[in-house]
Amino acid sequence: MIMNYTLRHAGYESNEDSNQIVKAEGAYLYTKRGQKLLDLCMAAGSQLLGHSNPEIVSAIQSQVSKGTIYLANNQYIHETCELLSQVVPSEYSDYIFSNSGTEATQKAIRISRLASGKSLIASFEGGWHGSNEWTLHDSGSRFDLDKQALNFGIPTSINKDRLIVPYNCDETFEILERHKEKLAAIIIEPIQGSNPQSNISGFLKKLTAFCYQHNILIIADEIISGFRVSLSGASPKLGLKPDIITYGKSFAGGLPVGLTVINEKVSQMSFGNPENAVITGGTYSANPLMAVAATATLKQLIQKNYTSFNTESDTFKNTINSELLNKNLPFKIISNGPFLRLAFTDKPFKSRAERDKLEMPATLQKTFRDIIKKKEISWPTNGIVLPSFEHREPELRLAREAIISSCIETSEFL
Amino acid sequence: MIMNYTLRHAGYESNEDSNQIVKAEGAYLYTKRGQKLLDLCMAAGSQLLGHSNPEIVSAIQSQVSKGTIYLANNQYIHETCELLSQVVPSEYSDYIFSNSGTEATQKAIRISRLASGKSLIASFEGGWHGSNEWTLHDSGSRFDLDKQALNFGIPTSINKDRLIVPYNCDETFEILERHKEKLAAIIIEPIQGSNPQSNISGFLKKLTAFCYQHNILIIADEIISGFRVSLSGASPKLGLKPDIITYGKSFAGGLPVGLTVINEKVSQMSFGNPENAVITGGTYSANPLMAVAATATLKQLIQKNYTSFNTESDTFKNTINSELLNKNLPFKIISNGPFLRLAFTDKPFKSRAERDKLEMPATLQKTFRDIIKKKEISWPTNGIVLPSFEHREPELRLAREAIISSCIETSEFL
Repeated sequence: MIMNYTLRHAGYESNEDSNQIVKAEGAYLYTKRGQKLLDLCMAAGSQLLGHSNPEIVSAIQSQVSKGTIYLANNQYIHETCELLSQVVPSEYSDYIFSNSGTEATQKAIRISRLASGKSLIASFEGGWHGSNEWTLHDSGSRFDLDKQALNFGIPTSINKDRLIVPYNCDETFEILERHKEKLAAIIIEPIQGSNPQSNISGFLKKLTAFCYQHNILIIADEIISGFRVSLSGASPKLGLKPDIITYGKSFAGGLPVGLTVINEKVSQMSFGNPENAVITGGTYSANPLMAVAATATLKQLIQKNYTSFNTESDTFKNTINSELLNKNLPFKIISNGPFLRLAFTDKPFKSRAERDKLEMPATLQKTFRDIIKKKEISWPTNGIVLPSFEHREPELRLAREAIISSCIETSEFL
Repeated sequence: MIMNYTLRHAGYESNEDSNQIVKAEGAYLYTKRGQKLLDLCMAAGSQLLGHSNPEIVSAIQSQVSKGTIYLANNQYIHETCELLSQVVPSEYSDYIFSNSGTEATQKAIRISRLASGKSLIASFEGGWHGSNEWTLHDSGSRFDLDKQALNFGIPTSINKDRLIVPYNCDETFEILERHKEKLAAIIIEPIQGSNPQSNISGFLKKLTAFCYQHNILIIADEIISGFRVSLSGASPKLGLKPDIITYGKSFAGGLPVGLTVINEKVSQMSFGNPENAVITGGTYSANPLMAVAATATLKQLIQKNYTSFNTESDTFKNTINSELLNKNLPFKIISNGPFLRLAFTDKPFKSRAERDKLEMPATLQKTFRDIIKKKEISWPTNGIVLPSFEHREPELRLAREAIISSCIETSEFL
């Protein structure tokens, strides 16, 4: 086929690629040339119940003949909200739907500015909150923010209203202290995709205490951790009470969704004033097809054993790490429950900035990815390993063996 | 039911509402209490083939059991692109998918800044490009931009990098002339939702000539007009060759979608430089469920008679306008083919700013909406009437009669 177009997504350019995916089921992806790949990405965690979950499939198939979108109040989204209200901590009373994590964090930031009357938004090095202007930067190995902002097509003038702070260190609070009067909100992933840690609650509690003290709103980005590390996400698991939480991905069966929930205080400070205008709508937001997929997902998640899900993920990590240590290989899995990452170092680190200094060169990391790909594993391009409830012992064993043998083979190039 | 949450979308707050939609088919919506409403909004034009189109329903039902999302190259999105390349003008060779109009215009603006190395973006009073920061403002009756920007939760400092210019008048070019050196791009709806005109090509051609002359990129926002006013949208119909076009809504059967297409020049200026980083991806972007819905939509649109679709819409408008004129009623339908709006004045106007000065007060416009709602019509909240291919003579007659009688009844309050 002669292509007279280029699909501009990394890896999507070629239509000649026999690795194109044609089907997904449970923990597996199937390629055009008939390969079965164990999926360790699960659409960035969107498929928490596994691909093609029968209840979700059937809910979508049934709804689609009743319409995909009404752009009007509909009973299906209220059914979803009823279930959400059983899962999301009860202090978050207002739900604002959108279509992606980018939109959910954009709305969270806009509401926090409106509510506070201030404009400065702080986010963290190593953080990721989608493609919205206020948090998009390349932190970690490269901290030349102005250059990066330009490269992303974002004017540098907006740096006046955003602040990128170092993560998980004393300097964090020194910098925040200097900007405390101007800060509308601080946005943070309770568990960072670039650096998922299990012992982060001390830092997070200190951060929230700082925010309460100085009247700064705190936004928890739980787009990956929500519904995953516990049914109610990372905030309750880690003892946090942020003002705003953003969700997405795992609760709508893979259909596009973003959700911003706000507590009563923020609701009063923003929507409570009728003079205020916040755009909450959007053509596709709260559409009935997403709603029935979310309802079918939540009904099942409520029945799941999250203790086992966490324990199994911890065992998965510990087994791999023991083996890597035994073999003296410079790799280590870090995680918070079923939210894991392979670090290309065995040294401890507290932040992505530290991680980037310790990890082996990018070329060797690419070598690892090339090797594991040959073992019929679909390795996440963003490095975040997000198992589903369909990753049972056979899948976890396959994944363990592939990761360990790929580490061994990669280390031969060290 | 006691609600312990509030769904924060205008009109979605109550779950007690018996007007909640439960089903949609062809040109009709069905409410919980059994009412059948003629839909004149069609999900802001997303349902160009009518609700629950059998081929789209069947394509989604079949795909969903093969997976809703892979986050990987897949054959379904390439099938969509193949069809798109037969419809989208051939000079646009790069396709970038996203999940909403907001995301499509955000990417268009980011790419234009990256490509040009400049940061100022101009948009027009009365324009609408979704919820992205750079074009969101309340134009028309209220031009106090700073106040509005604050109310939307957007810092006023970004006004340095955006410019809101008056629409369709000599002053437009005087202002653009003063900023020509700094302008990265001008974004415009070839047909404005707030003011859909049939005789706008003179202004648009003058605008594009200005852009070519001063090396300013031009972005056509065809999120409503694309695939609607002609198979290839408004740009070819009006003889325009913008550098970037954004699409959405009508080509994916109501599933969340945004599409940004760029010409070879912009592609070279942005992606052509490997030093440049533009984030084009997104978890849900280019997902296989949207892809099969889009393929099923495009296959049918290619077979449609757009000449008839335009003629029928023009006849619809002319019949209503003659009747309104005969009865001396101060209303008029304005349109460009099947993209229509009821103006609450019979005086001619060139822009939304002029329209707002001529239209009857907002309270009377609300009276009209309350009246027509009682005639079992789902009237678009944004005022844009977007018929589908399922709006045939019986539906158009129903709509004509409801609009005319509602105008008569509203005029009694004048």
